[in-house]
Amino acid sequence: MITRMSSLFLRTLREDPAEAEVPSHKLLVRAGYVRRVAPGGYSWLPLGLKVLRKIEGIVREEMDAMGGQEIQFPALLPREPYEATGRWTEYGDNVFRLKDRKGADYMLGPTHEELFALTVKGEYSSYKDYPVILYQIQTKYRDEARPRAGILRGREFLMKDSYSFDLSDEGLVESYRKHRDAYIKIFDRLGLKYVIVSAMSGAMGGSASEEFLAEAPSGEDTFVRSTESGYAANVEAVVTPAPPEQSIEDKPDAQVHHTPNTPTIETLVDFLNAAGLDRTFTAADTLKNVMLKTRAPGADNWELLAIGIPGDREVDLKRLEASVAPADVAILDEADFAAHPFLVKGYIGPKALQDNGVRYLVDPRVVPGTAWVTGADKLDHHVVDLVCGRDFTPDGTIEAAEVRAGDPSPDGKGTLVAARGIEVGHIFQLGRKYADAFALDALGPDSRPIRITMGSYGIGVSRLVAVIAEQSHDELGLIWPRAVAPADLHIVIAGKDDTIRAGGERLAADLDAAGLSVLLDDRTATPGVKFADAELIGIPTIIVVGRGLANGVIEVKDRASGERTEIPVDEAVAHLTRLVRG
Amino acid sequence: MITRMSSLFLRTLREDPAEAEVPSHKLLVRAGYVRRVAPGGYSWLPLGLKVLRKIEGIVREEMDAMGGQEIQFPALLPREPYEATGRWTEYGDNVFRLKDRKGADYMLGPTHEELFALTVKGEYSSYKDYPVILYQIQTKYRDEARPRAGILRGREFLMKDSYSFDLSDEGLVESYRKHRDAYIKIFDRLGLKYVIVSAMSGAMGGSASEEFLAEAPSGEDTFVRSTESGYAANVEAVVTPAPPEQSIEDKPDAQVHHTPNTPTIETLVDFLNAAGLDRTFTAADTLKNVMLKTRAPGADNWELLAIGIPGDREVDLKRLEASVAPADVAILDEADFAAHPFLVKGYIGPKALQDNGVRYLVDPRVVPGTAWVTGADKLDHHVVDLVCGRDFTPDGTIEAAEVRAGDPSPDGKGTLVAARGIEVGHIFQLGRKYADAFALDALGPDSRPIRITMGSYGIGVSRLVAVIAEQSHDELGLIWPRAVAPADLHIVIAGKDDTIRAGGERLAADLDAAGLSVLLDDRTATPGVKFADAELIGIPTIIVVGRGLANGVIEVKDRASGERTEIPVDEAVAHLTRLVRG
Repeated sequence: MITRMSSLFLRTLREDPAEAEVPSHKLLVRAGYVRRVAPGGYSWLPLGLKVLRKIEGIVREEMDAMGGQEIQFPALLPREPYEATGRWTEYGDNVFRLKDRKGADYMLGPTHEELFALTVKGEYSSYKDYPVILYQIQTKYRDEARPRAGILRGREFLMKDSYSFDLSDEGLVESYRKHRDAYIKIFDRLGLKYVIVSAMSGAMGGSASEEFLAEAPSGEDTFVRSTESGYAANVEAVVTPAPPEQSIEDKPDAQVHHTPNTPTIETLVDFLNAAGLDRTFTAADTLKNVMLKTRAPGADNWELLAIGIPGDREVDLKRLEASVAPADVAILDEADFAAHPFLVKGYIGPKALQDNGVRYLVDPRVVPGTAWVTGADKLDHHVVDLVCGRDFTPDGTIEAAEVRAGDPSPDGKGTLVAARGIEVGHIFQLGRKYADAFALDALGPDSRPIRITMGSYGIGVSRLVAVIAEQSHDELGLIWPRAVAPADLHIVIAGKDDTIRAGGERLAADLDAAGLSVLLDDRTATPGVKFADAELIGIPTIIVVGRGLANGVIEVKDRASGERTEIPVDEAVAHLTRLVRG
Repeated sequence: MITRMSSLFLRTLREDPAEAEVPSHKLLVRAGYVRRVAPGGYSWLPLGLKVLRKIEGIVREEMDAMGGQEIQFPALLPREPYEATGRWTEYGDNVFRLKDRKGADYMLGPTHEELFALTVKGEYSSYKDYPVILYQIQTKYRDEARPRAGILRGREFLMKDSYSFDLSDEGLVESYRKHRDAYIKIFDRLGLKYVIVSAMSGAMGGSASEEFLAEAPSGEDTFVRSTESGYAANVEAVVTPAPPEQSIEDKPDAQVHHTPNTPTIETLVDFLNAAGLDRTFTAADTLKNVMLKTRAPGADNWELLAIGIPGDREVDLKRLEASVAPADVAILDEADFAAHPFLVKGYIGPKALQDNGVRYLVDPRVVPGTAWVTGADKLDHHVVDLVCGRDFTPDGTIEAAEVRAGDPSPDGKGTLVAARGIEVGHIFQLGRKYADAFALDALGPDSRPIRITMGSYGIGVSRLVAVIAEQSHDELGLIWPRAVAPADLHIVIAGKDDTIRAGGERLAADLDAAGLSVLLDDRTATPGVKFADAELIGIPTIIVVGRGLANGVIEVKDRASGERTEIPVDEAVAHLTRLVRG
């Protein structure tokens, strides 16, 4: 196919759009791929739509290859199924809701677990029907509080969402593995730089879950990875390696010290080091007890929760929230402290907590035999050498402390470093939450019902256009991988004389006949304007038909490396076909 | 591609769904193509989605071939552009409206004239940029009062909508013609039986407009066509041929008669024929004056309107509404009559209307020189021989009388007959309404602005799945045209023994290798169940691999004709490839 710039609905811009902050947003607008229509709402212009459709095609091919069956649901969804699972309420402000002319409630679907479960229940009944994997590639909606970064986080976007239905946990693990393999193929074909990180399940509720994060400085998701292994994880999913337990026998007795004017860890450490105890203390030797309250889903009352973490670390609220989910968590306010006078603010210790029945969870580094400086439950007093397993026994551990660069990698290889990424895929063993809500059962060989277990798997198809642009551009413009470029080749006719124009036209026709897609710059603009547009648009190979044609040569420029080669025009079709087809 | 029935997400139904009234709805549900999710909201199961995508592909090919450029807008549209053209209000209850979390107004787009106009304005500025034709194939929404007939009239549906932008009226006519030609190619490729009818513009406002109506007894649109020519038109668009004017000289004077107990046309005609006037009267000799009121868009007040039509015809409300559009129209109520005592109900005549300044429009058959029996503006009195152009002069004519089978065709050839159809396409010369709303101008060669003129063109892509099913089915099930069938061939393995099964598998593999798509019934079900499903699913060619295989033959059945042929299995691939590829 030949697309002519002279008639293509495309006007490139010289200036970055005012509201754009990230490179993909700037370049996709400047190069005429997308245009903003509303907050978080974009139109796809011809070149953008071509890239989107190529990505969609790759996703579809791999989903079909792994045995997925494509179906399609409406985006406009009735309230009832979402009421049944509680998600009508849970979604809060994040979904668009509306009423039809009769006053019935609808929402614009952000994800379709309920309807897929109901549909499978409607069609299938026997254990022989299973397993099945269904998917759709569909426009989805989320009422983001702050739609940003162009199509990276829009309110209307294209997603592939799939759902697996299995008779057993082992079956679910297999469906999950198939998706994981297919996702790897998809993201590899797209030329993406990405990591697979363990993820917490968030509001979805369930067990095994991984995210595919494309590395990008503009990413909203932070993750950590090992300096020496393939380990990568969401910060929320990092499991702190517990140090070895220590012997209790050789530990000195716990001693309460009067420690005036030590409201902070720093002042406490300074005080202790000046107290003539013949030891050097650091913040890591202290155990600070953070008071929280949690509320189980649907419950009316809050319960106290105390968390003990080494004094050199802060609580990471996202890790804390992920750890207590689906319960809500909040920090104690003054009224709470007033209601529990045994909590001596700034000097809270394990003893008062445990004496008063407060649930007490500690950082995994607090193992039996470790000795800590902590609050003595009395104003201006701390206790030194309070030994875990001897002087106090926590109710369990919790992942709530911040993860820091330099922490040991949980797989024992190397240390952790921080990185930023954009979520492009998510695979998730849902389990039986939705099957339970709708009594999705198969009749087993023994005529007894088998509760189905589900997985849910997503890929942000339209987001990928921006993610690829984030990873693949330079100061001149976009640089598309061949697999998703809006055309195979970009021919610039550089010169106004009839021979050059005819030569460019002939070459385009020959390449088209060879099955390649060509963007042909047949405009009357100057070569300078055409070259600048070619760099901006980012088709991987740019062919310049210009004065060299008189000597039988054309120039082939690699967009990514900038490398230029002159080749004989007679060999152009063979050469370029090899280049494109690889 | 081989699709295996043993794992296909498909369960056919033996019973028609309770709510289904039309054949396409019954069969598409029974054959497992679609499932209802909400009123007017359907999910597409695998076979249905394949048919939908094939139709979409044909539409896209022809739109590209005629020079259309595909883009895509959001479905979630901000209020402002629709406010600018007045359509935010005009749409009334027919669109879905919603607010985002910040309270901003949005609607789910039923059509995109505003955004296309704004987008072209954003990109293009010079006369050299034009003409351009842009299109999208996109999910659209309408809050139908009575969603019905499955996907024939849903609330969420797939449409191709395109828009042309031209510098001149001649350019618009050319863009319109290109669309008309492309639509003919599309509907011909789909094997549709359809007519192209002149259409009124309805709420869109504009000039030339035609509808493509697929003939179907279940159609909601009635149209008429000539018995002897290609003339076809929406009933609203039929222009009544005016009879020749008559001489006034030879007409007797008008005479008022006392006509007691003649409240209806029928009683009046009987009375006159019994009154010894030496003439025979029919209802067609009487002129009944119907009292209405109209209100211009945005106006507060209603104005009286009287319509005079021959007494043998009823007022056709749709024709009347189309004639007065965009004004609203209503029939007078008792209060209106009380407010205008000169209106003597049942005996209203032209004189009182014109004496009191009531606008008076007549049927085109009421030409100068014609004599009528009509009301004398006095209880129990009529006037005979009231001559148009002598005794009264109407303010104009109006198309409001019903069109009847047997009426002369407006093109002078033959008479009209009624038919029913389903709108599958609509082409429409919009003119400058939207360009005016947004000041969409091109800078001309003389540096003066040229106001752009637009066309808008739609095809109901998802509706076409149902329309084809309406036109192509029998009592056993669906019968797809090859161009849109969910597979090229349907192989039924009819027998459980291993040779037959292996033979069916081998044939499917060979056909797949030859590039044909095969639906392979490899289930363990009985041949009877498989045959019934094959007829129901409606792939045009059914191949039965059964006992004949022992003799080296298979059976090929044409789904439409029911014709069966035995062919040697060795020649099957060559034979079937010819059959499918035509």
